[in-house]
Parts: sequence; structure tokens; C-alpha cells
Amino acid sequence: MSAAFDKLAILGIGLLGSSIAHAVKAYGGAEQVTLWDGSDDVRERASRVIGMDVAASAEDAVRDADCVILCTPVGVFGEVTAQIAGALKPGAILTDVGSVKVTAASDMGGHCPANVHLIPGHPIAGTEKSGPEAGFASLFQEAWHILTPLKQGETAYDDAVARLTTFWQGLGARVETMDPVRHDRVLAITSHLPHLIAYNIVSTAYDMESVEQGEVVKYSAGGFRDFTRIAASDPVMWRDVFLNNKDAVLETLGRFSEDLAALQRAIRWGDGDTLMKEFTRARGIREAIIDAGLDTAEADFGRRHIDPNADK
Amino acid sequence: MSAAFDKLAILGIGLLGSSIAHAVKAYGGAEQVTLWDGSDDVRERASRVIGMDVAASAEDAVRDADCVILCTPVGVFGEVTAQIAGALKPGAILTDVGSVKVTAASDMGGHCPANVHLIPGHPIAGTEKSGPEAGFASLFQEAWHILTPLKQGETAYDDAVARLTTFWQGLGARVETMDPVRHDRVLAITSHLPHLIAYNIVSTAYDMESVEQGEVVKYSAGGFRDFTRIAASDPVMWRDVFLNNKDAVLETLGRFSEDLAALQRAIRWGDGDTLMKEFTRARGIREAIIDAGLDTAEADFGRRHIDPNADK
Repeated sequence: MSAAFDKLAILGIGLLGSSIAHAVKAYGGAEQVTLWDGSDDVRERASRVIGMDVAASAEDAVRDADCVILCTPVGVFGEVTAQIAGALKPGAILTDVGSVKVTAASDMGGHCPANVHLIPGHPIAGTEKSGPEAGFASLFQEAWHILTPLKQGETAYDDAVARLTTFWQGLGARVETMDPVRHDRVLAITSHLPHLIAYNIVSTAYDMESVEQGEVVKYSAGGFRDFTRIAASDPVMWRDVFLNNKDAVLETLGRFSEDLAALQRAIRWGDGDTLMKEFTRARGIREAIIDAGLDTAEADFGRRHIDPNADK
Repeated sequence: MSAAFDKLAILGIGLLGSSIAHAVKAYGGAEQVTLWDGSDDVRERASRVIGMDVAASAEDAVRDADCVILCTPVGVFGEVTAQIAGALKPGAILTDVGSVKVTAASDMGGHCPANVHLIPGHPIAGTEKSGPEAGFASLFQEAWHILTPLKQGETAYDDAVARLTTFWQGLGARVETMDPVRHDRVLAITSHLPHLIAYNIVSTAYDMESVEQGEVVKYSAGGFRDFTRIAASDPVMWRDVFLNNKDAVLETLGRFSEDLAALQRAIRWGDGDTLMKEFTRARGIREAIIDAGLDTAEADFGRRHIDPNADK
């Protein structure tokens, strides 16, 4: 099978950018790959650990590329797109891997030339690790990849979506299309709120005067440890997610806080029936996940994606 | 090495009770084991899957036992102790595996005969699975086991604590002693609050009108799925934990909600610096856990303990 693209440019070489590079090396998808990152240090490390062409500037990286993937934090999508706009090849695809899609589309769209196909995207895959050393080829295997196309029924654009779909499928992903507003709402509950809560509980544990940090670490197996893993995720990436999906996150968080207040009240008043009812129905979603075949030992967040040597 | 106990009685045959039975079979610790559960159905299933003696009554189970371990939900500790009090052997040890220790000590203590050594305990080990089929021998390997002895300096009691320590060490546990009030405070943040939050976010997801359940399940890899696993834990056990560790849980939950309100405010006002600061320091505890050698792929809650066939 011929590659989906002749030349692919990856801008931003963190966990996602480096994983795409490794995946293309392993499974194909582009004849040629050029990487770039805004940090001198990251570029230097990337050329050592990934062994692919690292360009000195974003413009150099995207020149002649059929497909450009933004893998930087979403907060700089506008800035990076403005920087590369003049160097993009007519007919090229500009896409991304950002965790929010409404602002990603408008930030990139504000600078993307009319003759370039802007197709925002988001792989539902990741680990809590960051940096060019964190990437690995199998990250996208059997993971969902959501594309949020901006139009439909224009042949050239539809062809570009089809090509990008083929590319991600080649890396092992299951590709879906979705409305960007809906994407941001769904991800607010399935990903953004869980991360916010994980960061928050770790903060709360830090500030407990009545409990020593050593005790928190020592007895973390009771549930807390899972939260610390999620809360080890890249702070810049997550800051940008919350700033760029404000409305959906605040709406979801408001509901979470209301529900938590109800549980708090049940605990205070010794209302075991309410606790029992809420805890019992929580099992339902778990069963749906198991029924969907999504609960293997490796499938949980960070598990299937973990490089067993990364902590060493 | 001779067994720590001639006869061991295990009351309550859920995940913990059945795991102790399997562990004693595998690693020793008692010449003879008798199990009992308040449910006819559980007793019947236990005798099939565990293959050890299951008594028809709690009194029969504890008669002549050197050590009795309560593995029921903590809410019935008083009732069960009252039931067995007349059948307990003088000089026997009465202990438990409950997740709260202050009320456990007073509930058992209110009915425990003076000539029986009451030594409350809590293994920091578990999975989200329940029932007699969920147990497995290695659950306690390298897990902390906290004893909260009620007195010190009485030779017979101290000897009993030493024997119980030897028993748990034989099953692979690392035994520590701790003040019960401190235990309940530490576990409120490392275990009870994480479970409450996990139950709560799953509830919140259920009630989102703007997002379909199928979408929540499908895209749960973004962080949510970990929470559903924790929230699949036994509802009765957790109801009793919250009702019996009310003060420490409410105190910890109050701090969590305050901290979350501060993050909410930062998101609403676009205060990226505050988000960045909080997210960055959350990495510190994770690093401490990694430094303590507690972060192996198997070490996270539910991972090292999972029976790979249990979901089938």
C-alpha cells in the first residue's frame, strides 16, 4: 500500500508528536517525516532519540508537506499557524491533536490559507508522560481518533478528510467524525473533569496539616495513587485545555460539585440509603465499559500506553 | 516454621475474607481455617470456590479459634461481635480488616469479652471486585497492614500483637502499628475521598443530558475509565466506611471542595498562572511515589490485584 502522504510535518515533539513519528516509522503513512519544536533543547533531544529529520524552523518543516500536524499545546495553535501560513503548500492538510476542538478550529482557522484543508482532530490516547522521550509507536493502536471536519460536500475537502482518515487508520486508530461543540462537551466529562479532579485531590493532600506527606505516599495504594498518576500529566497542556474549554468544563464541574454536595450531606446526616443508591448505580457504567470490551488490564488510562522502562 | 495459629476463623467471605483463605492455603499461618458468612448464598458459593470448611453459624466458626478475623462490612462489626462473644475462646485474638478503625474498635470493643485480645487491623490492599470468587492468595504480598492496638505494656496483649504480626507477615504483608484516629485521618485522604470522588463523577456522567451514555463509555480512555473502575467497588462496604469515618471524611472533603472552587475560579477568569502552579506541584507527590518504588505497572490500585479472568 502506498503511503497516505509523501511528506508529513509534525510541529511540537512531546508525547504525541514523538509517538506519531515512531508510529509512522513502524506502520507507514508517509514517505518522509520532518519534525520541529519551538524549544532548542527539545529539538536536540528529539534528533537523538527519534532519529528522524528535525528542521530548524517551523516554516522549513512544513515546506512541501502534504500534511502538517500541530502537536504543540493548544494555547499556541494560532501563533504557530500564523508562523507557517506562508510556507504551507496549496492543497495541503493542516490538522492537530489538541484535546479541545472549538477553539482549536478558530485559532488555526484564523490564520490558515484558504487553499489549505483545515481538519481538526483528536486522538483519545495518551499517558501521563511528556517530552520527546515519551513517545512510542503503538500509542494509537485501537484508540479512537476523532476528526471534526469544518465542512461537507466539497469534493477536494472530503478527499482530504478521507486521506487523513486512511493515515490514522494506518497507525491503528479507529476514526470517527464529530461536531466540535459535541466533542468538547463529551471530552469535558470523560477527560477534562477527571484530570481537574485528580490535580485537585493531589493539591488537597499536599495541604493537609494533620497528615504527613510520607504517610500519603506510603498508604497511597488505597485509591489515591491512581489519581497521582493522572495528575502527573503535562501541566502546560492541561492549563491550555481548561482555558480553551472553559464553558463545557465549568458546566460539568458545576454539576459535579452539586452532586458531591448531595453526597456530603448524606454522609453528614448518616443517610446510608442515598449513599447506597448512588454507589450502586455507579457500577452500571463500569459494566457497560466491560461489555464494550474496553476493560482489559491494559486498557485503562496510561496502562496500555506505558513504557515499562519510562520510570527507571 | 510452625503456623501462627492452630485454628483461624474468617467471618465474612467477600474479597478480603476469601483472599485470606487463599493466602493461608498458599503461604500458611493456620493449621485449620473455618469460614462463615451471613448469607446462605455466599456460604454455598464459598464452599464451592474456596474448598475450605464453611460453618453453618458464626458461633460454630469461632469456637476453639485462636484468631477470629471480621471481614464483613464495618457496619455490622458490633452485631457480629455480640453474636460470637459467648463462643470466643479465652485468650483468642479478635481482629478485623475494616477500612475505618475508631468506630471498629468501639463497636467490637462494646461486645468483646475481657479475656479476648481485641486488635483492630486494616490491610491496604484490595481490588474493585467483590464476593467469594474475587479472592486470591497474593493480595497481601508487599501491601501494608496497619494494626491499631488498644493498649501497650501488657505482656499477654503484646504477645498477641506479635503473633498477629507474624501471621500477616507470613501472608506477605508489611505490618505497621498506628493510632486509630491517625489511621482514619490518613485513610480519609488516601482512600476514602478518592472513592467518594470516583463514585461522584460516575454519577455526574450518568445525569449529563447533553452527552449520551454510549459516548461516555466509548471515549472513556481519556481518564474517566480509571474512575469507573474505582467506583465499581462494593457499595455496602463503602457506605459503611463513609458512615463510620464521617468526621475525617467531611473535613477532607471540605478542603477538597475549597481547593476545587479555587481551580474553578481560575478557569472562569482565565488565570493560567494559578492552574500552572497547582498542576506543576501535583507532580511532586507522583515523583515521591516513584522514588519510593511504589510505581510499577502492577502497583496501582486494582492492577496488581486483578485476576485477569475476573471480568470474563
